[in-house]
Amino acid sequence: MNSKLRIGVIGTGKIGRLHLESVINHISEGVVVQVADPFISREMIEWLEERGVSNVTKEPEELIRNPGVDAVMICSPTDKHAEQIVLSAREGKHIFCEKPVDFDLKRIVETLKIVKDSGVKFQIGFNRRFDHNFRRIRNVVESGKIGEPHIVKISSRDPAPPPMGYVRSSGGLFMDMMIHDFDMIRFLVGENPVSIFAKGSVLIEPEIGKAGDVDTAVVTMDFPDGSLGIIDNSRQAVYGYDQRAEVFGSKGCCQTDNDTDTRVSVTTAEGVHSDVPPNFFLERYFWAYVDEMKGFVQAVLQDRVPSPGIEDAIIPVIMAKAALESLKSAKPVQLEEILEKKKFDFLLNK
Amino acid sequence: MNSKLRIGVIGTGKIGRLHLESVINHISEGVVVQVADPFISREMIEWLEERGVSNVTKEPEELIRNPGVDAVMICSPTDKHAEQIVLSAREGKHIFCEKPVDFDLKRIVETLKIVKDSGVKFQIGFNRRFDHNFRRIRNVVESGKIGEPHIVKISSRDPAPPPMGYVRSSGGLFMDMMIHDFDMIRFLVGENPVSIFAKGSVLIEPEIGKAGDVDTAVVTMDFPDGSLGIIDNSRQAVYGYDQRAEVFGSKGCCQTDNDTDTRVSVTTAEGVHSDVPPNFFLERYFWAYVDEMKGFVQAVLQDRVPSPGIEDAIIPVIMAKAALESLKSAKPVQLEEILEKKKFDFLLNK
Amino acid sequence: MNSKLRIGVIGTGKIGRLHLESVINHISEGVVVQVADPFISREMIEWLEERGVSNVTKEPEELIRNPGVDAVMICSPTDKHAEQIVLSAREGKHIFCEKPVDFDLKRIVETLKIVKDSGVKFQIGFNRRFDHNFRRIRNVVESGKIGEPHIVKISSRDPAPPPMGYVRSSGGLFMDMMIHDFDMIRFLVGENPVSIFAKGSVLIEPEIGKAGDVDTAVVTMDFPDGSLGIIDNSRQAVYGYDQRAEVFGSKGCCQTDNDTDTRVSVTTAEGVHSDVPPNFFLERYFWAYVDEMKGFVQAVLQDRVPSPGIEDAIIPVIMAKAALESLKSAKPVQLEEILEKKKFDFLLNK
Amino acid sequence: MNSKLRIGVIGTGKIGRLHLESVINHISEGVVVQVADPFISREMIEWLEERGVSNVTKEPEELIRNPGVDAVMICSPTDKHAEQIVLSAREGKHIFCEKPVDFDLKRIVETLKIVKDSGVKFQIGFNRRFDHNFRRIRNVVESGKIGEPHIVKISSRDPAPPPMGYVRSSGGLFMDMMIHDFDMIRFLVGENPVSIFAKGSVLIEPEIGKAGDVDTAVVTMDFPDGSLGIIDNSRQAVYGYDQRAEVFGSKGCCQTDNDTDTRVSVTTAEGVHSDVPPNFFLERYFWAYVDEMKGFVQAVLQDRVPSPGIEDAIIPVIMAKAALESLKSAKPVQLEEILEKKKFDFLLNK
Repeated sequence: MNSKLRIGVIGTGKIGRLHLESVINHISEGVVVQVADPFISREMIEWLEERGVSNVTKEPEELIRNPGVDAVMICSPTDKHAEQIVLSAREGKHIFCEKPVDFDLKRIVETLKIVKDSGVKFQIGFNRRFDHNFRRIRNVVESGKIGEPHIVKISSRDPAPPPMGYVRSSGGLFMDMMIHDFDMIRFLVGENPVSIFAKGSVLIEPEIGKAGDVDTAVVTMDFPDGSLGIIDNSRQAVYGYDQRAEVFGSKGCCQTDNDTDTRVSVTTAEGVHSDVPPNFFLERYFWAYVDEMKGFVQAVLQDRVPSPGIEDAIIPVIMAKAALESLKSAKPVQLEEILEKKKFDFLLNK
Repeated sequence: MNSKLRIGVIGTGKIGRLHLESVINHISEGVVVQVADPFISREMIEWLEERGVSNVTKEPEELIRNPGVDAVMICSPTDKHAEQIVLSAREGKHIFCEKPVDFDLKRIVETLKIVKDSGVKFQIGFNRRFDHNFRRIRNVVESGKIGEPHIVKISSRDPAPPPMGYVRSSGGLFMDMMIHDFDMIRFLVGENPVSIFAKGSVLIEPEIGKAGDVDTAVVTMDFPDGSLGIIDNSRQAVYGYDQRAEVFGSKGCCQTDNDTDTRVSVTTAEGVHSDVPPNFFLERYFWAYVDEMKGFVQAVLQDRVPSPGIEDAIIPVIMAKAALESLKSAKPVQLEEILEKKKFDFLLNK
Repeated sequence: MNSKLRIGVIGTGKIGRLHLESVINHISEGVVVQVADPFISREMIEWLEERGVSNVTKEPEELIRNPGVDAVMICSPTDKHAEQIVLSAREGKHIFCEKPVDFDLKRIVETLKIVKDSGVKFQIGFNRRFDHNFRRIRNVVESGKIGEPHIVKISSRDPAPPPMGYVRSSGGLFMDMMIHDFDMIRFLVGENPVSIFAKGSVLIEPEIGKAGDVDTAVVTMDFPDGSLGIIDNSRQAVYGYDQRAEVFGSKGCCQTDNDTDTRVSVTTAEGVHSDVPPNFFLERYFWAYVDEMKGFVQAVLQDRVPSPGIEDAIIPVIMAKAALESLKSAKPVQLEEILEKKKFDFLLNK
Repeated sequence: MNSKLRIGVIGTGKIGRLHLESVINHISEGVVVQVADPFISREMIEWLEERGVSNVTKEPEELIRNPGVDAVMICSPTDKHAEQIVLSAREGKHIFCEKPVDFDLKRIVETLKIVKDSGVKFQIGFNRRFDHNFRRIRNVVESGKIGEPHIVKISSRDPAPPPMGYVRSSGGLFMDMMIHDFDMIRFLVGENPVSIFAKGSVLIEPEIGKAGDVDTAVVTMDFPDGSLGIIDNSRQAVYGYDQRAEVFGSKGCCQTDNDTDTRVSVTTAEGVHSDVPPNFFLERYFWAYVDEMKGFVQAVLQDRVPSPGIEDAIIPVIMAKAALESLKSAKPVQLEEILEKKKFDFLLNK
């Protein structure tokens, strides 16, 4: 495939628009040929027209069936993901899908089995893998510079709790927030964990507790080779979006500090003052979103398996369920307790 | 002016293309309506078409006279700047011009007098004023947090010497490289210097010395209130593009470190290793270029005086000439020795 | 008590000598009047004589009973601690004792009950509480600047595993190494934990595993108010003695990086290189040892309760036992499972 | 000489006492055998007695002539230095002398000629050469890691102006403050400068201006190989004692940041806050003073030429005089204009 990848985008919410901007402004190998959104705004239609995208429909199915579309980017609400993935796979369209594939683990596995069988390319939207800092840590680990990983630590804290409506429908902290860190820890270590132990508390917003969720959580896990992992999450870091990681290994340690708006420090009699991290994920991960899309487009054009792929769409969900189960039972939970591995083994990379 | 600013861009070299990308991708208040370049490439024409810009000419004059153009961005070779500025001013077009206006100080003053009299908006291309780090220092100085500036220091070092052809035609280190720092030190302090003392050496590339230039230079200056300034330049920092500044004042000190690709550090038995600064000015100042153009577009649309403006197009050139004179004479040089202030006083902001 | 505190020191090994130096060189309120060590070296006797300490005995009991001694510093092997503490308390001598009081929890409680009843001052040797970095974090937490603690994290990694003989007799990683972090986390948060969950692995030295111990461990815990704690330990950080902590709270986050020999960075084409942490605890905690002793001397002279005191000599041991139990059972362990709280409640500060 | 160096200390002011503490507490190869001070305090005598030093005299000459003294540390007022040096040299005593040897350049040269001829060891009190940070930079430069030095920068700023009495008698900023940086820049580069250009202002304390001095100064210089140097000084950095340096070379850059009390940062919604440098030179350079004395004692015992030595006692004074002359004349000054090199060439190391 030498010419440009012809892309159809389903969904024009915050994340859909972000991907549209990436393809239009930054990815010369791809072109947006159609956009679908049942509730598309007039303003969005104008915005697209200014950028030369005039083929807009309210019917996602129409877009998926459009023979001029090579790849579908699914940025619709989660409850539409599975059916749009299945249809896309059947139509032979390559698929980029925002996470998660579905809230139901069985349905995820069934859906991805169809994708696997269809042979189309599939990438799941764990954008942080493309972040300059985390990608660098992964590269350092792979290079062997710090030897074998022994301890992996991730701190991931949001600037403010989400609206309560979101909390109630999202599946909770482990499913909507820590799921990114579950994927990240696998990415950094290059392994899936064996068991998970979770502690959680309601320290920020009592309403979150009433909704049956926690707003502060610490999760530990072990990997097959005995290395250990730690993730801590908080729904509210008043100083901004705190995103750090560290891999400690047999030959050294690799860690990343937060990005900041500037490198400026102000020193007065009161102390040295410097910038907090940026406040919002779109700011923090702007280039990660661009590179994620670039990675997908290039994988399709060069006929490579996109990453993160099918396995990565499954395992973090299992980890989130294990964490939830551990929180409830106050005991560590084996991943195999959640879903028998043989049931989805054929979907794993190895 | 409520609608978008209609922009014509002259020149499609590296910098012209960069500004085109800024307007097309990032500045919703502006639209590129025409591009002119006597030597435009076929590839560039296609690139523009893909982005909806089909009106391309080989005649800059045609673009300047186009009644559908509100503002002209002059990114042509320096020897064309003055005549294109004058024509644009006469046609009532607002002007953004890459630095310098001309190599000849008298011609700069004459050209800018015409601009001044015409009443069109004028911005000169000192992009670093829009850099996140330097702008923050300026904001801190203006806020009074560090009191009155006493000592201002700028380090500015290129990753590698330019081609010798460039060195021979550019006017030398003070005119092509330190001129950015001359503008920056005025920007940070908010004052023009009184006198300048320059020391320079040929330590990197003997050919540069044979061409009558230096490759390493240190310049000190004083400001009307007695505060002192230091700039150091090197044509070659093997570790990348080193761009730092510090303002030390009566109540504190504000400084900026370099940007780096990541915030990752790798700690091994040999030490802690972290990133060098990015290697190239387009990488380092990408967002500064975008914000520079945004600043121009917004100033025109909101009928404000753009900054950096007419004064800023003149004074750094006088400083460069003073530095060159000081280097030759091995004595400090008063700025008034270079050009009688009364001759261009009417062009200054105050 | 207006005059100087008259101190007797038992034990002249590495740590005993360190405390002797502190008192002699840095603590003007105290004076060493006698030293006892059954195995004192000739060199040590000379060293003491040069510093004006000529009263040396091989009988610790003689020193404890010496009416010219106000306070006893117990730096003997651990198996002597309890009996020397009891004798000192009965003789009315104030006591500084290196940790732990004993390997047996019951004996610790019984010993400290006698101390409590005797009314003498008692300080236990958790020197890190006096470290400039950790003390600062505690001060910041107490000041309320970062609000209520939500998540506390400690990384504590040794430069190299201890000799196998030490591993076999020390009580294991939780008892000889993480015990410092158990005390530290209580110090930083100002609370005792409720339950502990431990994961451990043998990743560095197989001999350690054969001895029934682990060399890499991650421990999580919760506090009565729901805040969460994480400690990670490794027997071998090839880059030096890695000692960091972070308290994340409702209003901010306070963390400390490692000390380093210098603040120098070297930037070359290969990257920015800076110092690793110092390699050894005597280097890292030199001033902490001095300040620990100063704290004890001043507490006695000013008739204040020394800190860390009786409670701090007990709780970390209970935590270590809980961690060990959790490691074995693969389940979280309540501290109350280790020792009924009522049994030592009267020894706690509150 | 195998036994300990027998040291006599003249002067028990702030700096004399500091050196006494160094020898007594930290330098096992030396022993203080006598102390002389015409105005010694009762408290000081007691302090010495407690540390085993009972031989105290009010007559420096007596100490210098004491056959039990191997080396004399001259910490008396500057106007006594020259005569005490000369007497010590004649008595065959090794000499450590606080800077400067004298205020008069001719007398310095004459005094040091006598020292040179006598063959005794001589070290001058430029303690900063022993600072961990600056020594590291020198080591990096010597190692060749950053290639040939091209630009050297020193920032040196005091926390507060000295008392006016001191300003009036000290010889001014260049002689009492920047003289340390004059020595440091020679130490870092390993060369003596050729010419010096100085700019100075009165920005902090008008009284300093009335006394004929400046409180803010920037000095540039060049070295024989064309490399360039910059020093900036301020009498008042409100945030503490600011002591930084940078050597930029053909293969990289080496710089040091300030020491700070802790490595703790506090992150709140307002920003990241960390420590300012310590406020006072005794705090900042404590270990440098110890190592300076250790260096002297070891040089004598091992029969090596101490460093900084005779040359280092002369050149910085010449530099200070050149800077003063440059400030007055507003022109760069050649060092040879201050004192003909041939007049003291025989005292230089090379």
